[in-house]
Formats: sequence, C-alpha cells, structure tokens
Amino acid sequence: MTGDGNDTTRRSPPARRSAFPLIRRLATRWSDNDIYGHMNNVVHYSLFDTAVNGWLIETGLLDLRHGSEIGLVVETGCRYHGELAFPDEIAAGIGIGRLGRSSVRYEIALFAGGEETAAAEGFFVHVNVDRTTRRPVAIGPERRKKFEEILL
Amino acid sequence: MTGDGNDTTRRSPPARRSAFPLIRRLATRWSDNDIYGHMNNVVHYSLFDTAVNGWLIETGLLDLRHGSEIGLVVETGCRYHGELAFPDEIAAGIGIGRLGRSSVRYEIALFAGGEETAAAEGFFVHVNVDRTTRRPVAIGPERRKKFEEILL
Amino acid sequence: MTGDGNDTTRRSPPARRSAFPLIRRLATRWSDNDIYGHMNNVVHYSLFDTAVNGWLIETGLLDLRHGSEIGLVVETGCRYHGELAFPDEIAAGIGIGRLGRSSVRYEIALFAGGEETAAAEGFFVHVNVDRTTRRPVAIGPERRKKFEEILL
Amino acid sequence: MTGDGNDTTRRSPPARRSAFPLIRRLATRWSDNDIYGHMNNVVHYSLFDTAVNGWLIETGLLDLRHGSEIGLVVETGCRYHGELAFPDEIAAGIGIGRLGRSSVRYEIALFAGGEETAAAEGFFVHVNVDRTTRRPVAIGPERRKKFEEILL
Repeated sequence: MTGDGNDTTRRSPPARRSAFPLIRRLATRWSDNDIYGHMNNVVHYSLFDTAVNGWLIETGLLDLRHGSEIGLVVETGCRYHGELAFPDEIAAGIGIGRLGRSSVRYEIALFAGGEETAAAEGFFVHVNVDRTTRRPVAIGPERRKKFEEILL
Repeated sequence: MTGDGNDTTRRSPPARRSAFPLIRRLATRWSDNDIYGHMNNVVHYSLFDTAVNGWLIETGLLDLRHGSEIGLVVETGCRYHGELAFPDEIAAGIGIGRLGRSSVRYEIALFAGGEETAAAEGFFVHVNVDRTTRRPVAIGPERRKKFEEILL
Repeated sequence: MTGDGNDTTRRSPPARRSAFPLIRRLATRWSDNDIYGHMNNVVHYSLFDTAVNGWLIETGLLDLRHGSEIGLVVETGCRYHGELAFPDEIAAGIGIGRLGRSSVRYEIALFAGGEETAAAEGFFVHVNVDRTTRRPVAIGPERRKKFEEILL
Repeated sequence: MTGDGNDTTRRSPPARRSAFPLIRRLATRWSDNDIYGHMNNVVHYSLFDTAVNGWLIETGLLDLRHGSEIGLVVETGCRYHGELAFPDEIAAGIGIGRLGRSSVRYEIALFAGGEETAAAEGFFVHVNVDRTTRRPVAIGPERRKKFEEILL
C-alpha cells in the first residue's frame, strides 16, 4: 500500500518558506476546526486544491468553463508538523517537484501567519486529461513553459 | 518532502476487499461531487476519518466526551484508482499496518457498491496523545489488544 | 431581509416523524462535529441536499449526467431544536410543501436514531431550470405526478 | 414549519453593500463549486459562520479556548439571488437585526468581488449560552455595548 512515513522520529525537518517559488494566501473557516479545536486533517487537502487550482486559473492553465484539458488527481499526501486553526491566516508555498509528459507533481506547504517553518506539507499529482474522454494528454509546449516557472 | 508515487505506470495494483479484516459502510453526499461530476479527492480523507473513528468509538477505543487519550493525525496519503461519486454507496476496508508504542498506522481502501477492487486506497497515522498536554502516550495493554484484532 | 423566527419562546413545536410521507437514512461524518462537539449548523443543509437529491435521482427526476433540467436552490432555512453529532445515524423526513409551475418547496426534518421528534427542521426551494440557459422551465405532467406523491 | 419565501416574483430586492455597518473579506475554495459549476448553497452558511465568528473573536466577544459563554445557532436562513463561484473573492456585509436579552440575530449578505448588490443574503440567530450547561445566559452590559456597534 501507499507511503511509509509513520516513524515520526526519523522524518525530515519541516519545509521552510524560502524553499518555494510561489506563495499564495489562504483563509481558514469556522468549520475547519474539529472537535479537538484545531484544523481537521482533511482541510489541508482542500487548501492544497485551492492554492494550486487558483494559480492554474490565474495563469490560464485551467479554464473551468471552456477548457478541453483538466487535471485529475491520482495521488495525494500530507505530513502534519504543527497545529493550524481558524481564524489563522495561512500562506501556501507551492512548487512543482516533477513535470512529466502528462503529469505534474506539486509540492505544497502550509505556513501559519508569518511563520517560516511549515505547519504541514504535502503533495498532489495531477494527470493532464481530456475533459471528455478522461484519457491522459501530453502537456503542450506553451503550457509546459508556464509549469516550468515554478519547478523546484 | 513526502511520498514518491507519481509514476503512475509502475505503481502496485489496487487493493482487494478480501485483504481487509474490517469492512464498514459509508454514504456519499451531494456536496462530495465537484465540478467534474465525481467525488473530490479531499472527500476520501473525510471518509477515512469517519470509518476509522466510527470503529474506534464502537470498540470503546475513543470516547469523544470523557476520554483522556485521543489520536492526533501526523501523516495521511491516498492513491486514486477510479472514480467515486454521489449517490454511490461505499464500503471501506480497514486494517492496521503498523502498531507502534504510541502510534497506529491504518490502511484504508474505498470500494464502490459491490466492487471487489478498490477505487482508492490510503493510510493515516495516529499518534496516541494525552488530550490536554497533546504529548504522546504509550498505548496500554487492554487497548492494544483491541487494535491487534485488525492487524494486517 | 429573510425570515422572522428569532423569538425562541413562541415558535411552533418540533415536527414529528409521522408527518412526513418519505423517510430516508443519512449518515454522519467525523468532520460534522465542530469545536463544540456537535454537528455544525451548516451540515444540516448538506444533509437536506443529500436526502432530496438522492430521492430525485432514484425516482428518475434528476439525471446528473444527461438531464436537461436541474433544480437551482433559491431559498433555504433551518430551525435547530436539539443537538445531533457524529456518530449518530439520522433519519430525514421529506415532503413537498408547495408545488408551483416551475418550483418545488421541500420540507425536511432530521431525526436522531429512533427519535420521533425532530432535532432540526428546514426547507429548501428548488426552481426547475434549463441546464444550459438556467432559465425557469415548467415542470412537465409526468414529472409533476412523481412530485405529487410526496405532497404534504 | 419555517419560512415562506418560495414565491420568487414578489420577494424583496437584493440587499446593497451600503446597508451594512461591517464588511469582511472572505475567500472561496475549490471544493465550494458543485457539479453545476457554482458555489453549492450549503457553502453560504459556512461563510456566514466564518464572517460572524471571525468578528466575534477579533472584538473579544468569543474566546474559543477559555470563554465561558458561546453562541449556539438556533435558526438560519438564506435567499440566493445570483451565482457565486470559486475563485471569486467575496465581501460579507454584517449587521445585527435584533439584540435580545440572550440572543443575537445577524443579517448577512454576500457580495461577489466589487458588486454593490448581494448575490445572497441570510441570517442566523445565536443564543448566548453557558459553555458547560448549554443554558441561555443574559448578555452582559460590556459585551452588549460591542454588539450594539453593528446594530442595523
């Protein structure tokens, strides 16, 4: 099965803000806090989606209404280093860890307020597919250039 | 950073239902479907949480109101093999992949309707902590016995 | 602005299960519980959507992929009588309070476990629209007949 | 049962931004868009919660960790005038429509980007309760003064 990282003593240190070519602001919501008073582990993934898709839309890489290619998520993961909670403001650091023929692996870290050290970090892998057939499609050269701008 | 699995051609085949000692029923919701008409990748984690915590509560391993120990999530991950969508009924297969001194790694797979092959599979790692101090606490022998019942 | 009901002493008593022509089962999720340990007030609306759209799909009144008409929500409301919380099982009572030329007003109540008295009750109003133009369309006689089966 | 407003031709016009003493910024998320490509009707309530509780926390009216009084939601409602969608930025207009002995009724409207006319408007009613007993408690004079600052 997936992953391996449950040995919390040996794992690599939290990512730092300076490691990411792109930083985006995100907001927390009341409902993000769970019964334990901190952001539920699921919400981090919603923030990953929001940060990456927000960037894709702004750069013209994703057109929700008329685009013929979309990104399907095939794998995601997250390590949690510290607590986040509403009403924190959050900064997301984003970079592309691997740019394949038809896939993109994003590395994302979440930073509370002005913190330099990530409260959580994760990744997700998009496969570029045809919107109708949902079959993988090679990323064209013009779009590839835009992705390369945030390669790690 | 976390994980490695973005090479979609080499990855291991989807899990099968028979691999899991515990099966729990889950329901989808209208809001699970995103703009692409299928279950958003974030929802899978919400279902993992629901399946595992539901079992913990039923077996007496988690007492939301009075328990002195809770499970804090330190790592999660998911691979998506196929689409799920509202109004699918879903079965979750659950097993424990590693039972440490104070941590538990759950392996979870989601199956649509009567399918034998997982539409998605993932994991999450709970560290057993004191509810107030949030410091790790060893899992006692009585509770350990219950966890061992679903060891993989 | 909307509504009037903030005088909690005078409001009508909670609905009873027997008042509803249709009952559907719903499940709670871990993330439904907020920091106060009960189901966040927002989740009730997600359950309303799930209960009504589930019925619409099963009766053939809504076809998510190929239907030319969809229901747009123009008004919703909910009164909360008691607490619900994960891992409660919930029953939703559903009936149609008003069936207009192109609109349907659903009355919905949520009951915890085997309770006879609603923990919450609300409504939502769907306007039947053309999927592409989003303009109101009269509900045809065949579909109307199905709606009439659960008129209050 | 609750409300009445399903006659869409007679209802009052959308609220305007200038009607509200308090404006707060909110952000949309990828998962807010449902299968119809716009913000699901449930999300509006999550934004209401976020806007009001954010203000309560900032003004010192709500202390998530140590406060002895919390607001329990007893009624909510929303009318939808137009579509909102990720990645819209949203402004929430907030005012208090009625300040009772132990209850507060908030009127809230959501405005897309720089729009003057509300895309949605609603309300919710908080009853001020003791955190432990969950019984209503009169709002003290110091706190009342703060609420009065945004009375409509």
